[in-house]
Amino acid sequence: MIPELKFDEKGLISAIIQDAESNEVLMMAYMDKTAIEKTLKTGFTHFWSRSRQKYWMKGETSGNVQEVKEILYDCDEDTLLVKVIQRGAGACHTGERTCFFRSIKKS
Amino acid sequence: MIPELKFDEKGLISAIIQDAESNEVLMMAYMDKTAIEKTLKTGFTHFWSRSRQKYWMKGETSGNVQEVKEILYDCDEDTLLVKVIQRGAGACHTGERTCFFRSIKKS
Repeated sequence: MIPELKFDEKGLISAIIQDAESNEVLMMAYMDKTAIEKTLKTGFTHFWSRSRQKYWMKGETSGNVQEVKEILYDCDEDTLLVKVIQRGAGACHTGERTCFFRSIKKS
Repeated sequence: MIPELKFDEKGLISAIIQDAESNEVLMMAYMDKTAIEKTLKTGFTHFWSRSRQKYWMKGETSGNVQEVKEILYDCDEDTLLVKVIQRGAGACHTGERTCFFRSIKKS
């Protein structure tokens, strides 16, 4: 059951992907209504690629798929938080576990 | 030192706000270059409000400010992950600790 979500002018909604076990934020990507439906139906994250203008399943080539545990949405209904079990080496195409591996200001 | 970041056509970049202690994802908001500079200079999160078209410091009225511990950026340089100490009751204007308090699909 998909609630009323606010998609942007391109029909997209931001999806923050978080490791359900470590709580590490892994990546950010974009879904449209169909990508959400594909994700719910298969249990694995699917996104809309803005650069390639096509749907993709995370890990479809690398094998680093993301098994969905929970999808939350925020108070404004314009952002998703997808909690996943990250399979394989990690989420980032660089080989890093998370796409957020560089820091502007160290704590 | 702000690295080369990719701002969107409106000059904005998405900023995921994460609790530095619990690793809970608290909210998502938008920064432009000036908001990043204000955040770095003050040590507290500042954003650009797309609805109100003005800068705001998180907690400026509620007191629920966010002390910045670290700012990370992703492999594409188009998303920020800001780790904060959340002061006060929480991040969400509804009174919830996090803006992500509703779920589409329970685990």
